Amino acid sequence: MARASAAEPAAPDPGAWRQRHAAVRAATVALAQPLSAEDCALQSMPDASPVKWHLAHTSWFFETFVLERFAAGYRPFDPAFRVLFNSYYNAVGPKHPRPRRGLLSRPSLADVLAYRAHVDRALDLLFARVAGDPALAALLELGLHHEQQHQELILTDVLHLLSSNPLQPAYRDRRYVAPPATARAQRWLAYAGGPTEIGHAGPGFRFDNEVPRHRAWVAPFQLAARPVTQAEYADFIDDGGYRRPELWLSLGWDLVGAQGWTAPPYWTREDGEWTTFTLDGRIAAEPHAPVAHVSYFEADAYARWAGARLPTEAEWETASAGVPLTGNFADSGALRPLADAGAGGALPSQLFGDCWEWTQSAYAPYPGFAAPPGAVGEYNGKFMCNQYVLRGGSCATPAAHIRATYRNFFPPEARWQFSGIRLARDGN
Amino acid sequence: MARASAAEPAAPDPGAWRQRHAAVRAATVALAQPLSAEDCALQSMPDASPVKWHLAHTSWFFETFVLERFAAGYRPFDPAFRVLFNSYYNAVGPKHPRPRRGLLSRPSLADVLAYRAHVDRALDLLFARVAGDPALAALLELGLHHEQQHQELILTDVLHLLSSNPLQPAYRDRRYVAPPATARAQRWLAYAGGPTEIGHAGPGFRFDNEVPRHRAWVAPFQLAARPVTQAEYADFIDDGGYRRPELWLSLGWDLVGAQGWTAPPYWTREDGEWTTFTLDGRIAAEPHAPVAHVSYFEADAYARWAGARLPTEAEWETASAGVPLTGNFADSGALRPLADAGAGGALPSQLFGDCWEWTQSAYAPYPGFAAPPGAVGEYNGKFMCNQYVLRGGSCATPAAHIRATYRNFFPPEARWQFSGIRLARDGN
Amino acid sequence: MARASAAEPAAPDPGAWRQRHAAVRAATVALAQPLSAEDCALQSMPDASPVKWHLAHTSWFFETFVLERFAAGYRPFDPAFRVLFNSYYNAVGPKHPRPRRGLLSRPSLADVLAYRAHVDRALDLLFARVAGDPALAALLELGLHHEQQHQELILTDVLHLLSSNPLQPAYRDRRYVAPPATARAQRWLAYAGGPTEIGHAGPGFRFDNEVPRHRAWVAPFQLAARPVTQAEYADFIDDGGYRRPELWLSLGWDLVGAQGWTAPPYWTREDGEWTTFTLDGRIAAEPHAPVAHVSYFEADAYARWAGARLPTEAEWETASAGVPLTGNFADSGALRPLADAGAGGALPSQLFGDCWEWTQSAYAPYPGFAAPPGAVGEYNGKFMCNQYVLRGGSCATPAAHIRATYRNFFPPEARWQFSGIRLARDGN
Amino acid sequence: MARASAAEPAAPDPGAWRQRHAAVRAATVALAQPLSAEDCALQSMPDASPVKWHLAHTSWFFETFVLERFAAGYRPFDPAFRVLFNSYYNAVGPKHPRPRRGLLSRPSLADVLAYRAHVDRALDLLFARVAGDPALAALLELGLHHEQQHQELILTDVLHLLSSNPLQPAYRDRRYVAPPATARAQRWLAYAGGPTEIGHAGPGFRFDNEVPRHRAWVAPFQLAARPVTQAEYADFIDDGGYRRPELWLSLGWDLVGAQGWTAPPYWTREDGEWTTFTLDGRIAAEPHAPVAHVSYFEADAYARWAGARLPTEAEWETASAGVPLTGNFADSGALRPLADAGAGGALPSQLFGDCWEWTQSAYAPYPGFAAPPGAVGEYNGKFMCNQYVLRGGSCATPAAHIRATYRNFFPPEARWQFSGIRLARDGN
Repeated sequence: MARASAAEPAAPDPGAWRQRHAAVRAATVALAQPLSAEDCALQSMPDASPVKWHLAHTSWFFETFVLERFAAGYRPFDPAFRVLFNSYYNAVGPKHPRPRRGLLSRPSLADVLAYRAHVDRALDLLFARVAGDPALAALLELGLHHEQQHQELILTDVLHLLSSNPLQPAYRDRRYVAPPATARAQRWLAYAGGPTEIGHAGPGFRFDNEVPRHRAWVAPFQLAARPVTQAEYADFIDDGGYRRPELWLSLGWDLVGAQGWTAPPYWTREDGEWTTFTLDGRIAAEPHAPVAHVSYFEADAYARWAGARLPTEAEWETASAGVPLTGNFADSGALRPLADAGAGGALPSQLFGDCWEWTQSAYAPYPGFAAPPGAVGEYNGKFMCNQYVLRGGSCATPAAHIRATYRNFFPPEARWQFSGIRLARDGN
Repeated sequence: MARASAAEPAAPDPGAWRQRHAAVRAATVALAQPLSAEDCALQSMPDASPVKWHLAHTSWFFETFVLERFAAGYRPFDPAFRVLFNSYYNAVGPKHPRPRRGLLSRPSLADVLAYRAHVDRALDLLFARVAGDPALAALLELGLHHEQQHQELILTDVLHLLSSNPLQPAYRDRRYVAPPATARAQRWLAYAGGPTEIGHAGPGFRFDNEVPRHRAWVAPFQLAARPVTQAEYADFIDDGGYRRPELWLSLGWDLVGAQGWTAPPYWTREDGEWTTFTLDGRIAAEPHAPVAHVSYFEADAYARWAGARLPTEAEWETASAGVPLTGNFADSGALRPLADAGAGGALPSQLFGDCWEWTQSAYAPYPGFAAPPGAVGEYNGKFMCNQYVLRGGSCATPAAHIRATYRNFFPPEARWQFSGIRLARDGN
Repeated sequence: MARASAAEPAAPDPGAWRQRHAAVRAATVALAQPLSAEDCALQSMPDASPVKWHLAHTSWFFETFVLERFAAGYRPFDPAFRVLFNSYYNAVGPKHPRPRRGLLSRPSLADVLAYRAHVDRALDLLFARVAGDPALAALLELGLHHEQQHQELILTDVLHLLSSNPLQPAYRDRRYVAPPATARAQRWLAYAGGPTEIGHAGPGFRFDNEVPRHRAWVAPFQLAARPVTQAEYADFIDDGGYRRPELWLSLGWDLVGAQGWTAPPYWTREDGEWTTFTLDGRIAAEPHAPVAHVSYFEADAYARWAGARLPTEAEWETASAGVPLTGNFADSGALRPLADAGAGGALPSQLFGDCWEWTQSAYAPYPGFAAPPGAVGEYNGKFMCNQYVLRGGSCATPAAHIRATYRNFFPPEARWQFSGIRLARDGN
Repeated sequence: MARASAAEPAAPDPGAWRQRHAAVRAATVALAQPLSAEDCALQSMPDASPVKWHLAHTSWFFETFVLERFAAGYRPFDPAFRVLFNSYYNAVGPKHPRPRRGLLSRPSLADVLAYRAHVDRALDLLFARVAGDPALAALLELGLHHEQQHQELILTDVLHLLSSNPLQPAYRDRRYVAPPATARAQRWLAYAGGPTEIGHAGPGFRFDNEVPRHRAWVAPFQLAARPVTQAEYADFIDDGGYRRPELWLSLGWDLVGAQGWTAPPYWTREDGEWTTFTLDGRIAAEPHAPVAHVSYFEADAYARWAGARLPTEAEWETASAGVPLTGNFADSGALRPLADAGAGGALPSQLFGDCWEWTQSAYAPYPGFAAPPGAVGEYNGKFMCNQYVLRGGSCATPAAHIRATYRNFFPPEARWQFSGIRLARDGN
C-alpha cells in the first residue's frame, strides 16, 4: 500500500479537526462491525494482517508519532504495544515479526477497541493546538490518511482470510446487489504526448512519494477508455493465456508454473461457468465488471496477448487530467468492481475506483525526492525497489483518500488487492 | 500423541455410559472455559491445533465413527465438517490441511459448542443399545479415550500459543501455588532383567499399539528413582551441554545449530535466574520440579552427559510393576510438573504424571500387531516411523487415561509436550 | 552407511598387512578408473559425494587417525585437507560442509591420487610395528573396512550422478551381460523363535555397533526364501501401490505426494515396458532380478500390500544361521542385482549380496553398547536416530566386507543405495 | 547480463567475417585455457554456470539460430544438445534446468571443444552468403555479441567458483601486478539537464533493449568524477554501514540480516587489514581501486550514507557524451578494477571498464520497444522486471563489446559481477 509522510496541510479550526478525526476513526471500527472477534484475530498469510492488528496499529501510529511527541505527560495504554504494533519503523525500535501478527489472541478485540478510545481521548486534547503548530497538524493529517490506507487493507485482508476458509463465508449479512450494466465496446483515447509535468503541487495533503512535481517527456500514446472486463479476461484464459510462455515476463512464467496459476486467485470454474469470491461470498462472475485481483504479471501478460501494453505512470497521470474524482469507492458499499456503461466521451471511464490499475512503472523516487527526517521518513522511500505503481483507487478505497497523483505500489506477484488492468499503446 | 483403536471393554449399563460420557465431554469444554473465542481460534504452529479445532474434531470422531454407522437417520450438523475436522483419516476422504487449521474463524466457537451438543444428543439415543452391541461399545469407548488425548493436547497447544505472544499471558486467572517440596538425592534402583512380558493383557480398554502382550528379554539394568529436575538440567546447561557436540546425536546437534537451542523452549535466563513459561504465565524456575519440554535429543544428550542413558520401553514397563497409578495429573490442577520428595523405597517415584518420560525405543509395532480394519486402523499404526515412545503420562493427562502399558509417541525433535527425562544404566 | 570402530583383530605379519592394505587401496582407485576427472568432481545431491572426495576422505581417515598418532614426524600432504576431507568428526575440528563437496575443482584428481600415494608411503613404515601395537593394528584394520564402505558409496554415488545426466551415460565401456535365470516361485521358510542371541562375538573385525552380542526373544516367524523381484514389484505398481494411502506409513505417503513417486527412482516405463538405469546405462527391466533402490517406505508398503511385513534384525540374523557368505557382490562385476534360481532348500537364497535388505528395526544401540573414546567414537553411535537397519550387503559391497552381524543403516526415505525387500510374516 | 537481438549491421566481406568470427570464438576458448576440465565442469550456484556450459551454449546459439535456419543439410553434433544447452528460450522447446547445469560430467570438456569446432566448420560455409542475406548477417552478428557476453560470465562465474573453495585457488599462474596509482579526491561534475535523447541510433550493432532512441527529460544533476574506491567503501563499513537500517532499502536490510552481510562478498578482514578474492587469488585490498561486487542494495546504501544517490540511466548516458570508449576492460589482462589517477578535466573518468555502475533505473522497455519475432525475441524483453540497469562495462568485458548506450541488468541482490558505484546528486 502507498504510505505517507508529513506534508503541510491547511490547519482548520479545532472543531473541524475533531469532527473529521472522529469520522475517519469511526469508519475503521465500522468495517470490523460485521466481524466476530475470531474473524478479527486471524492472519491468513504474511502479507495480510489481522483486522485487530489494523485496528491497533493505526492507533499506535497516533500514539507513537503524535502523542509521544506532542502530548506532555501522555501515559501509554500499554507499553508493550510499542513493539507489538510497530509495523516496520526501525527508528522506533524493535517490532513484532509480521508473519506472527496472527499469534496474538491477546490483547483481545475489546482491549484493542479500548486502546483506540484511549488514544482518541488523548488526541482530543491536542486539536485546540493544531492551528498554531504546523508539525502537529501535519502528523495528525498523516495519521488520518494512514488510517484510510488501513481501512482498505482491512477489506482486502479479510477477503483473503474468508477465501481461505472452505466454508467460503461472507463478510456481511446483507449482500450487495449490483445494478445491471453493460460495458461499452473498448475504445482507444489518443494523447499527443510531449513535455508534461507530473506529481503533486499546491495545497492539500499528499504523500512524500508524490512530490516534487517535475517535468517528464511522454511520447504520443493511446489509453483504453475503460478497464479490462471479466469477460475479456476469461477470453484470455480460454485462449491459453496461462499456458503460453511467450506472453509472460520470465519471473511471471516461473510463478505460473510454481504456483499452478490458471486464473485469478478468487476465480473458480464449475461446469463451464466462472464464479468469483467476494466480500459477499462466492457469486457468479460479472462479465461486464472489471477483472480484479490480477498480479502485475497477469496484467502484463494480458496486455501482450491483447497487442497492447500497460501505461506508464506519466501516461496515466496525463490522461487523468479533467477526469472527475468520482467512482465506485468503498463508500458505495458495493465492495467489488462494478460493470459501468461508461460515458462514451473523450475521457476515460472508471479511472478512479473499482480497481487499482497497474502501470508499467517501477516504483521509484521522483527526481528530487527526499524522505522526511526521523521515523516518518520510513513511510515510503525504503520500499522503492521491486514494486510497481498502481493508480486510481479501488472499490475498497475511501473516496476521500484518492488523488490523481496518488501512487500505490505492490510487488509484481501481489494478487490480494483489487488490482486490475487498463491497457495502453503507442502512437496516436 | 498415542492414538487408539477399538478394544472390547466391558459394556456397563446405559446410565453409567451416559454419565461417563457426559463427564468426559464436559471436561473438554471446561478446559476451554478460561479462554476467549480468540484464544480458541489461533494455531501457533503446524504441530499444534486451535482449541476450537480440538473441540470440533473430537465431536467429528463420534459423528464419523459412531453416528454415521450406528445412528440410523442421523443428520450431520454440517456436512462440510466431515472434511473440515478430519484429522488424518484417509479412508474417510479428503481433509482440511493441518497447517491451515488456524484459518477458520468460522464456524465460530459458539457454533462448535452447538455442534458438540448436537452430537451428544444423538449419541444419547445409542447408550441403551450398547450392552447388546460390542462394536458400538468399542467405538464409544475409543471415542472417550480419544477425547481425553485431545484434552491433553488442548493444554499443550494453548501453552505453546500463549508462549508465542510477547505479552506472555496466563491461561487462567487464578495461579496455582505449588506446595514446597525438595527432591531427594538421585538414587538408582536395580532390576535383575531376564525374560519378561510387556504389553497389555486382560480386560479394560487399551489402544491397538499396546498389544499383543509378548515376550521380551531385558538385560539387568538400573533405573533412576525419580526424574531429572530443573536444577540438574540447569547444571547440564552450565556445563556447556548445548555447546558440546560429543554429547549429541548427529541430528540433534544439527538442530541445536539450526534453531539456536540453548535451553528448553520455555526457559529464559534473566540476570542469572531461570524462569519458565507455564499455563500460569512466566514464573521462577522450580529447581526441584522435573524438567519438561525437552526433546528426545535433549533427553539423550543429558543422559550421555550424566553417564547414563534413556530406558527402553521394556525396562520402563518392567520397572512399573507394582507402582500405583497415581501422580500429578491434570486432575490436580497444577498443570505443571511439581517437586516431589518421593517415597524413598524400592519403587520409582513420579513414574506416572508430571512428565512423559522419553524412552530410547523407537515407536514400532509389537510382534503380532495388526491394525484394525477400516478407517480406525489409521489411528496408530501408520505413525510407527521416526518417532520415539514416551511413558507415564504428564501433568496434562487426565488421571483416568493412563496405564502402565500406555505408549505415547512423538518425533525426537518435539518439545511442546510435557516431556521429561528418566535415566537408566546397564547392569546391577 | 554402517560405519566402524576399533576392535581387536589378530595382527598378522607385516607382509600380510602390506599386501592386504595395498589390495584394498588399489581396489578403490580401480573403481575410479573408468571415470574422467570431471566425473569424479561432481556431486549430484547432498547425500552423495564426489568420487574424488571419497578417494581423498579415505586417505584422510588414515592420515588423521593413524599417521597423526603413530607416525612420528609425519608431514601432512596438505594441512588444509584436515578440514576439507573431514566427513563428520566434530572432535577432529571444523569440516567442509557436506553439500559443498562438489565445489572443489581443486585439489585435482591427480593431486588426490598423489595424496593417496603420500599416505600409503607413510603407512608402509608402520606395518612392521603392527604386531606389537594392538591400538595401531585396530585403527589400520578400521581404516580398511572404512575404505571398503566408501568403495560401495563410490558406486552408488556415481550411479546417482550419471542418472542425473539426461544423456544417461554408462559408468564403463563394457556392459555386463547377465546369465539367463528364472527366479523360483516365492516360498516361506519357518523359524521356531524363542530366546536367541544376536550380535558379533569372537575374533575378527566388527564395527562397534555389532556388539555386545546379547540375548533377544524372537517369536515364531517365517521368512521369504528369496527377495522380491522386479516383476513382483511391477505388479504392486500396477495394482495402484503408489496411489493407495492405506498401504503406506504416514510419512511415506507424504513423500509419495510431495515428490511424485510412482516407481523406484531409476525405473521408467515407455510404451508399457519398464527400463532401469544401471551402471551400464539404461537397460530393460530384468523381471526375475531383485528390485533395488526402494526406500524403507516403499519396502514397507510393498510388504503390507503383499500381506506380509519386513523382518526384524533379530529375525534376519537368526535366519542367516548356516547361510554361506556368498552372493552377487561387487567382486562379480555385475554391479546390479541378478536373477537367481535359488537353492530351493531350507535356507534363504540371495541373503547376501544383490541388495541390502531393509529390516523393520530402527537403528539403535545394542544393550551395553559403548562408543569408543575419542573421535573414532563418532563413527556409528551418533547416527542412531531416525534410521533403519539393512542387512546382507549388495552387488556394490566388496565380498570381503560383509558379515551376518553387519548392520547397515539409512534414513527411511533413502533410495540411492542398492536396497531391496525380503518379506517376513508371523507364526509358523 | 544484457542480452541481444538482431539489428542490421553493415555486412562486410566474407574474409572479414571469417576473421572476426575466428577471433571472438578463439577468445572464449582462451579464457578456459588456464582451467582444468574439473574447473570447467562445476557450478557454484544457480546464477552461475560451469565454464563448459558457456563453451557449449554459445555454440548452441549459433547452431540453433543460424545453422538450423540457414545451413541446408546441417547435421547437429548431438541432437541431445538442443535441450541440454538451451538457456531460456521457451520457443525452442524444453531446456535442462539451470540449477542442474553442474551435474553434467558428460559431454566432457574435450567433447564440448569438438562441438565448438563442428559448429565453426559449418558456419564457415555461410560467410560467403552474408553480404546477400541481411537476416543471416544479423544473426551471425548477434551470435558474436552473445559470445562476448558469455566471455564475461566465464570470468565472473569462475571467480565465484574459486572463491567457494577453501583453498582459495587462483585462476591463472601468472599474477597481474597493478601499476601504482592514487585516486584523485572525489569531485562533482555538473550537468544542466533539460530535454535530451537516449538510446542507440544509427548504424552499428546494438541490442533490442537499446532502442528506440527517444526523448527524455533530465533535471539538472551532478555526477561523481570517478567511482567509489575500496578505501571509501571501507569507511562506510567502519561507520556501521551494515548495521544502520536507516541507510537501506527495506528489501536490502532484510538481506543484510538473513545472509549476514558485513562487507562485499569477496572481502575478508584479518588483523584489521582487508583482503579481496580475485582471479589471482586472495590479495591485499587496493584502497584506490574501485570497489566491486556490491549489490544494488549496497550501492544504494553507500550513496545514502554519502549524502548522494545513484544516477539514472538517462543521467549516466547524458554524462557519457564525449567520453572516449576506453578503459580497463578484459583486454588489459588485469581482470580486476584498478586504481586510476583520472584525468581531472570536465569528463568523468573510469566511466567505461573497471566496474559496471549501478543506476537507480529499473530495467524497463524504452518507449516503443518491440521484441523481435520468434525465439530471439526472448533475448531481453522478458527479463524486464525486478532488475536494475548497469552501465559502462567492467574489467571482465571485452573492449569491443561495450557502448555508451549499452544496458546491462541484474537483480538488486546480485553481487558476483564486477558491479560498482558511481554517485550522483541533484542540482548544479
